[in-house]
Amino acid sequence: MKIISLTFILMVFGGFAMAQNDESMQMKPEMTEIWDPEVSVITPGEKPSDAPSDAIVLFDGTDLGREWTNGDGAEPGWLVEDGCATVKAGTGIIKTKRVFGDVQLHIEWRSPSEVKGESQGRGNSGVFLQETYEVQVLDNYNNRTYRNGQAGSLYKQHAPLVNACKAPGEWQTYDIIYTAPRFNEDGTYFTPPTVTVLHNGVLVQNHVKLRGPTEYIGIPEYSVRKHGKGSIILQDHGNPVSYRNIWIREL
Amino acid sequence: MKIISLTFILMVFGGFAMAQNDESMQMKPEMTEIWDPEVSVITPGEKPSDAPSDAIVLFDGTDLGREWTNGDGAEPGWLVEDGCATVKAGTGIIKTKRVFGDVQLHIEWRSPSEVKGESQGRGNSGVFLQETYEVQVLDNYNNRTYRNGQAGSLYKQHAPLVNACKAPGEWQTYDIIYTAPRFNEDGTYFTPPTVTVLHNGVLVQNHVKLRGPTEYIGIPEYSVRKHGKGSIILQDHGNPVSYRNIWIREL
Amino acid sequence: MKIISLTFILMVFGGFAMAQNDESMQMKPEMTEIWDPEVSVITPGEKPSDAPSDAIVLFDGTDLGREWTNGDGAEPGWLVEDGCATVKAGTGIIKTKRVFGDVQLHIEWRSPSEVKGESQGRGNSGVFLQETYEVQVLDNYNNRTYRNGQAGSLYKQHAPLVNACKAPGEWQTYDIIYTAPRFNEDGTYFTPPTVTVLHNGVLVQNHVKLRGPTEYIGIPEYSVRKHGKGSIILQDHGNPVSYRNIWIREL
Amino acid sequence: MKIISLTFILMVFGGFAMAQNDESMQMKPEMTEIWDPEVSVITPGEKPSDAPSDAIVLFDGTDLGREWTNGDGAEPGWLVEDGCATVKAGTGIIKTKRVFGDVQLHIEWRSPSEVKGESQGRGNSGVFLQETYEVQVLDNYNNRTYRNGQAGSLYKQHAPLVNACKAPGEWQTYDIIYTAPRFNEDGTYFTPPTVTVLHNGVLVQNHVKLRGPTEYIGIPEYSVRKHGKGSIILQDHGNPVSYRNIWIREL
Repeated sequence: MKIISLTFILMVFGGFAMAQNDESMQMKPEMTEIWDPEVSVITPGEKPSDAPSDAIVLFDGTDLGREWTNGDGAEPGWLVEDGCATVKAGTGIIKTKRVFGDVQLHIEWRSPSEVKGESQGRGNSGVFLQETYEVQVLDNYNNRTYRNGQAGSLYKQHAPLVNACKAPGEWQTYDIIYTAPRFNEDGTYFTPPTVTVLHNGVLVQNHVKLRGPTEYIGIPEYSVRKHGKGSIILQDHGNPVSYRNIWIREL
Repeated sequence: MKIISLTFILMVFGGFAMAQNDESMQMKPEMTEIWDPEVSVITPGEKPSDAPSDAIVLFDGTDLGREWTNGDGAEPGWLVEDGCATVKAGTGIIKTKRVFGDVQLHIEWRSPSEVKGESQGRGNSGVFLQETYEVQVLDNYNNRTYRNGQAGSLYKQHAPLVNACKAPGEWQTYDIIYTAPRFNEDGTYFTPPTVTVLHNGVLVQNHVKLRGPTEYIGIPEYSVRKHGKGSIILQDHGNPVSYRNIWIREL
Repeated sequence: MKIISLTFILMVFGGFAMAQNDESMQMKPEMTEIWDPEVSVITPGEKPSDAPSDAIVLFDGTDLGREWTNGDGAEPGWLVEDGCATVKAGTGIIKTKRVFGDVQLHIEWRSPSEVKGESQGRGNSGVFLQETYEVQVLDNYNNRTYRNGQAGSLYKQHAPLVNACKAPGEWQTYDIIYTAPRFNEDGTYFTPPTVTVLHNGVLVQNHVKLRGPTEYIGIPEYSVRKHGKGSIILQDHGNPVSYRNIWIREL
Repeated sequence: MKIISLTFILMVFGGFAMAQNDESMQMKPEMTEIWDPEVSVITPGEKPSDAPSDAIVLFDGTDLGREWTNGDGAEPGWLVEDGCATVKAGTGIIKTKRVFGDVQLHIEWRSPSEVKGESQGRGNSGVFLQETYEVQVLDNYNNRTYRNGQAGSLYKQHAPLVNACKAPGEWQTYDIIYTAPRFNEDGTYFTPPTVTVLHNGVLVQNHVKLRGPTEYIGIPEYSVRKHGKGSIILQDHGNPVSYRNIWIREL
């Protein structure tokens, strides 16, 4: 009875109609079950922010040199204490020894509780995907800057949907889902990089497409060129921004 | 000096070349800053799982009837105690009074600690987007079922990337990013629904496209038809699954 | 026998495996036939370049004023003779009285046989979709210009895949498939405009996405704003470019 | 004057606003010109249906064996006369010796002038892309069949937008723009195949996405598996369908 009336509804209100009405032509539930291969089982973290069993822990608050180097491949110059790594101005970026393509990345950051500077000059750092595409880190709590350069922006390409910043001195989270670009043979994008960002649990980038590298000067499209996997880079922009609990899953 | 060498790198290693080299034709950083309109400021939750200031709290553990009805528009028949709402078998679905299109949805669920049944018969419920598209809720902890019907699946369309289930009796989280379909005039999709799901913080659906409603029987494409905003529905599948801390943000 | 071996092949070489092997769970060919609604029947042109029965003929070589006006809504100032309409420099654009969204557009054009000027100064005109997005018309036969501004380009956004120009004085064809943008409520694109162009039968634009209006100056993204259907516009760029056999189908 | 008023319009009616108003921060037209690399020059055919200089001519009406074999790699069994190749029932498919990925394909076909059979039994053949994805060839002139299996359909996946068939015995054209799938490591699609088809110059498929191989029985998604470039195949479905003027361009 129920199936008959559902069919009736579909015929009246839309959808495409099949010719066959005899019962042998009705599909059965089992025809759309797929059993193999079995989905891999992993163990999630206790809290959603904790690293699941299939993540690579990039920084657990102790040894920064295990997974990271500075820009020259030497030991990172940043300060590690109290379970976090803090930019030491002038020592330059840090980058992962491993290289990555498509990833889920969890990272926590904190801008200095002592507020100094304004606009781009306050609590400025950044998370670079594939060494090339920057998710801006900035203290935008009561600090206005250009919309496409604030915390949670894909730098100079996509402003965040909302400003979900916490106050200086508080820990904040980025959960980033990143799909690397695929390239045509001439070095242009076949598919562009896409990025989703949750800032403190709030969606601020919704599967946005990047037009090219996140450039300080110029038009991103014009500098697209083929590249492979790359490091995660954290930026030294001269401000003592801190990081902790960094883990990544290859997709 | 620095700008010159960057230009040199681009010319050698790829990208497109501009004709102009005189300085007046160099872009300036300010040319790619966008200041208006200002991005809206919201207050994130203390933890990422907590509702931010711009969310609608659909269930805070107390009054289920404020935002939900049963399938007939009457008071929900589910059990509310200990800060959660639990399926009371046979009372049917519950659905939100409000209707939604594109959303970010946070929801926490728990399958019964007493394990009963197997495959689809254990801890089965579901979260329906726009009343039509189901994110499966199921106890798949040491319980195999068809891959496209397990916890975190878009039912019979997309298996989860991994099985990130917690043990029965433990609270689990879904963070769902949903884009509603847009329709052609003939009722087919102009763009299909897309769904991203984090299960216990782990990405299990990465911006997947739905082919149509999530059907128990048949081919989803064949039953696509135009619809507007819809309720969030939680399913009564006969098992006492519990829910708590449900909030939603319209995108 | 045959079905069994096909199943075997799928299990060995990939694809997803179903659990059910008994015959009653095998799908039948009729289960994937869709009969209704019947597809509309139209009559194609005798040659592919001829207008099919469901096209609107925008110009058949005779009366330009039936479907077109000049920029002020008055009679077009262009010259109509010998079955074509030719830009009369200084009289300005012509635009269709009707407005369009998604379309298939066929248009034929000819640059002057007497070659004058170079780069953008030779045989320059343009076809604007929705009054906003220009497919460049230019004599690029032995005439170099910037790649993203040559014949078949989406002006300053996408260079053509190849230069398929005919010699000055010869008739050339554009077959354009255009999907209009859909908009978010804030006026940004939900989906961008996409364009496919065949130039003299050769694919020169392959479903490219536009970043915004095709601007002479500046960054297209920055000037995106919501708009509805719009006229097809043909540009007066000061050169006596001719047009004929223009037809359009609404998609 | 003009530039000022344009800026004014943008500020009032939408778009994003820049902070800078001084003249040195205005972009110049040359900043968005790209000159290198130069776009390749090709020579189009005299008519749009004629092979351009960069096409591979797969059949010019004379020697079928130069570019094609039968299913076993031997000489094709089809009949070549009067400048066309005609299916000889029972000799099986023909396939190109070369393999292709992304292509533009031009092909002309004719169903027998003597009308026999109905539905799928009349003038049935097919063009397979990458040996896997069928654009249906069928005589649907006054001959109804299931909509997702008629001429111009992607077999059992996408019905044509309109039925643009010519009468039996008349030559018809398909202009096909095909983008091959890219694969994930697990053999699923990273991006699905996409197909655009012009039938007798009329758009019948508009960049549609395939869900998997075009199956006679079953659900396409379930049989997706990784493959590389493949032959163009023309089907022997038992009816004496003829082909001529086949050329292809690799994209």
